[in-house]
Amino acid sequence: MSQIGDYKGLIKIYDTSLRDGTQGEGVSLSAEDKMKIARRLDEMGFHYIEGGWPGSNPKDMEFFARLRQTPLKNALVTAFGSTCRPGVEAARDENLNRLLESGVRAAAIFGKTWDFHVTKALNTSLEENLRMVRDSVAYLKQQGLTVFFDGEHFFDGFKANPDYALSVLRAAVEGGADAVVLCDTNGGTLPHELQSVVARVKQELPGVELGIHAHNDGEMAVANTIVAVQAGVTQVQGTVNGLGERCGNANLCSILPNLTLKLGYETIPRENFAFLTELSRFVYEVANLNPVNNQPFVGESAFAHKGGIHVSALLKEPGTYEHMPPEWVGNTRRVLMSELSGLSNLLYKYKELHLDKSSPEGRRVLEQLKNMEHRGYQFEAAEGSLEIMLRKAVNGYREPFQLESMRLILEMREDRPIQSEAVIKLRVGEEVVHTAAEGNGPVNALDNALRKALETVYPEVPGLRLLDYKVRVLEEKAGTEAQVRVLIETGNGKKTWGTVGVSTNIIEASWQALADGMAYGLLKDENNKA
Amino acid sequence: MSQIGDYKGLIKIYDTSLRDGTQGEGVSLSAEDKMKIARRLDEMGFHYIEGGWPGSNPKDMEFFARLRQTPLKNALVTAFGSTCRPGVEAARDENLNRLLESGVRAAAIFGKTWDFHVTKALNTSLEENLRMVRDSVAYLKQQGLTVFFDGEHFFDGFKANPDYALSVLRAAVEGGADAVVLCDTNGGTLPHELQSVVARVKQELPGVELGIHAHNDGEMAVANTIVAVQAGVTQVQGTVNGLGERCGNANLCSILPNLTLKLGYETIPRENFAFLTELSRFVYEVANLNPVNNQPFVGESAFAHKGGIHVSALLKEPGTYEHMPPEWVGNTRRVLMSELSGLSNLLYKYKELHLDKSSPEGRRVLEQLKNMEHRGYQFEAAEGSLEIMLRKAVNGYREPFQLESMRLILEMREDRPIQSEAVIKLRVGEEVVHTAAEGNGPVNALDNALRKALETVYPEVPGLRLLDYKVRVLEEKAGTEAQVRVLIETGNGKKTWGTVGVSTNIIEASWQALADGMAYGLLKDENNKA
Repeated sequence: MSQIGDYKGLIKIYDTSLRDGTQGEGVSLSAEDKMKIARRLDEMGFHYIEGGWPGSNPKDMEFFARLRQTPLKNALVTAFGSTCRPGVEAARDENLNRLLESGVRAAAIFGKTWDFHVTKALNTSLEENLRMVRDSVAYLKQQGLTVFFDGEHFFDGFKANPDYALSVLRAAVEGGADAVVLCDTNGGTLPHELQSVVARVKQELPGVELGIHAHNDGEMAVANTIVAVQAGVTQVQGTVNGLGERCGNANLCSILPNLTLKLGYETIPRENFAFLTELSRFVYEVANLNPVNNQPFVGESAFAHKGGIHVSALLKEPGTYEHMPPEWVGNTRRVLMSELSGLSNLLYKYKELHLDKSSPEGRRVLEQLKNMEHRGYQFEAAEGSLEIMLRKAVNGYREPFQLESMRLILEMREDRPIQSEAVIKLRVGEEVVHTAAEGNGPVNALDNALRKALETVYPEVPGLRLLDYKVRVLEEKAGTEAQVRVLIETGNGKKTWGTVGVSTNIIEASWQALADGMAYGLLKDENNKA
Repeated sequence: MSQIGDYKGLIKIYDTSLRDGTQGEGVSLSAEDKMKIARRLDEMGFHYIEGGWPGSNPKDMEFFARLRQTPLKNALVTAFGSTCRPGVEAARDENLNRLLESGVRAAAIFGKTWDFHVTKALNTSLEENLRMVRDSVAYLKQQGLTVFFDGEHFFDGFKANPDYALSVLRAAVEGGADAVVLCDTNGGTLPHELQSVVARVKQELPGVELGIHAHNDGEMAVANTIVAVQAGVTQVQGTVNGLGERCGNANLCSILPNLTLKLGYETIPRENFAFLTELSRFVYEVANLNPVNNQPFVGESAFAHKGGIHVSALLKEPGTYEHMPPEWVGNTRRVLMSELSGLSNLLYKYKELHLDKSSPEGRRVLEQLKNMEHRGYQFEAAEGSLEIMLRKAVNGYREPFQLESMRLILEMREDRPIQSEAVIKLRVGEEVVHTAAEGNGPVNALDNALRKALETVYPEVPGLRLLDYKVRVLEEKAGTEAQVRVLIETGNGKKTWGTVGVSTNIIEASWQALADGMAYGLLKDENNKA
């Protein structure tokens, strides 16, 4: 079991999701996206938020301008930049002056600590690099900024030439840096190496505040960060969900619970840990990325149990197969259906649905579930379809409408946008409804036609909203003949539910999920009335 | 830079992808899938392959039966099971006898080492549990098997009651276990804790071969495994890509290069590391999962560079921003297009395409790319669409066909399967071709009609095959009106290429990607003729 330790001093959390995070493949944030994320990080109690690199692109400039209009409450926003260029006086360096123009009160500037990079990438002398670091930090300090120095490639630089790497850090301290950040830029350092280097730096630079900036190329970013803190570092840089270039930056969603809930360091306020899962999903959503299901602490699967033995033990005592209670990080326990699960998982589900768990239907339903999963159905995110299926199997439930026929027509001509039209014929109770609708795409046309048909009988239909639509191609190597799974999220303003459809035809799969979503919505309403 | 160390002794690799890996959410493997993966692991030189849990489900039984017919070349296949039940003699225990029936020469059996689990989950006495462990191991040894004992929850058990946890391991050793495996079943142990516990076990059980089985709930599974090896463990359990329950098992794709290429331990033959990326993708494909792009070492993005400064340095010297050469693990360097990239990345791409990099078109094309990316296009996996776009912009290239009109009709009735028909009118050179085709779904009908139309003019069309079709819904919260991105992979038997389409209408997006895929295929052919 994990433990909550005693107070061990404050570790300051420096988020670089908005800068280094956007270097990740497929990550792109607008100025508005950045504002949304910054506000959320501020509410969570992050100490520093690196907003971007002024001058590197117009979005970052817009973001800093908007921050001047509506400043954050508590977090200190920093701008990122490099030292002055070789042969250029700090006060005349364009990059440094852009940083000042952005209006921030704090900056992180990076400089080279690896001799090979100074001569190979910068094409300058080792001496001139020390001058650039010292003068750049000093210039920003003279302008009243809090200044952090990011020692780029510090661990590789230290391995190659420890004396030079240390002398670069000393130059930053001489310039007045408020903290010196040790960067594992290429992300390949292993914990035992990192530990001994940090210990050496602590010894060589007594009294200097140190930071750690780790990358995940060796799958060590979180471990390296924890090891660095245990060796005396007090500023931790990372990103939400570990977004970042190549294999990503150190993942703050894992670092925070490890540091505070397991090791007892103070980081963000303890009461905010219950919003950590929400923060993770929020950032994925704003960045328009699919959440990583098996992500530690905050992933959908992080506390999901599939093995029959585990579930049977969990029914007795949750601590048996969980390293911490999911509520501590705002996550929830889930029990998955699968052919491995035996009956324990299904019984757990029955309990949730208040169905009779000892009925002979139990085994028959499990067979049917296995069979559907084999064909590509997944009920793990489709509790709506699962409940409808269970009700049909157990209670003889009948859906509130039946499809008689459906026709979709799509037309495209070189000179105009594509047109989508759906014609639909349903039996709704005693009536037959025959109607048609257009839409922005085939599934939207189908959704519109279905609503139009149902509204004539069910006045609550306009209150049901389609919130999310996901498509997954199964057995992808079969090309366009592959099985397609559609997941739909529907809501009524109070609650949301998932439904699923599977077919080789995306329209048929979409129809199944749409129909289940609507049927479940009408079912809920029945319950409310009852 | 990373280093290849001296020989440090052999660490045996124990893969449990086929057993613990299938506990992962969304992971399901048929007996044939398991055979394919087992053969590949055998070729790679893995020492032990855990095939399943005989009797827990029919697929595992079928797999072991097939293995008896066509055995592996080198790897030792093991079956997984538990100790005998409380109050049951080992020789009469159903589970242990099923294990023997499976015909394997080696077994891994797990037992409880955490006192809380013995009394809470097993409902038996601490003494009886020791008897069960000792007798179960001894019984399997008497039948001539190699036997590994998995100490479930060992690290949590050790924290709660170190003497009891150690006494369980001793019982396994007394029974004759060939190795004792320390399992971090709940995955919450931190490296410093794990290190001290392993050191203590080494001291208490001198001469006993130890293994490590880590889970990733604290994002520490790889780090914990490396630390355990450094503390004297010589058997490493894990899964390909870290598949497994909740947050997954220790990821062998990261452990192997860290152990061998960085730390110099012998594991699988060094010449096989060049197939590690292929192994990772193969397992994702067989398990029908989307690869994790930013996965260390083997992910698509693991050596992908986006930042302009990084790319400009890489052009000078690859070692500047890579922790190891991608070829060492069979991966490749990639340079990504994006608004952050400045011109360096595009120039690198130009170099690949042999286009004039100093032309005034350079900046115009970059603008156009940024604009398209803003609308949701991604060229990172769509080099076919990128090249066609560049050719149009730079060379005034014109596609080999133009769409005049397209109509898709889908019909569904309650009593028959959905019908999909596409009618298409194209200008192909001087001709206008007007034709129609049916298909298994709308995109397949469209693909069939396009091929039928082009075949009349281009005899090479039947050689082009659509290999993969992916759909991603962008801005998912907008429901069915959201932007949809379609990625298509087409091949001609020698080479494959990706193309992309984006629209709010999935059919329009699919058409764009299909048309680019075909146009690029015909272009290649032109090149071959030239």
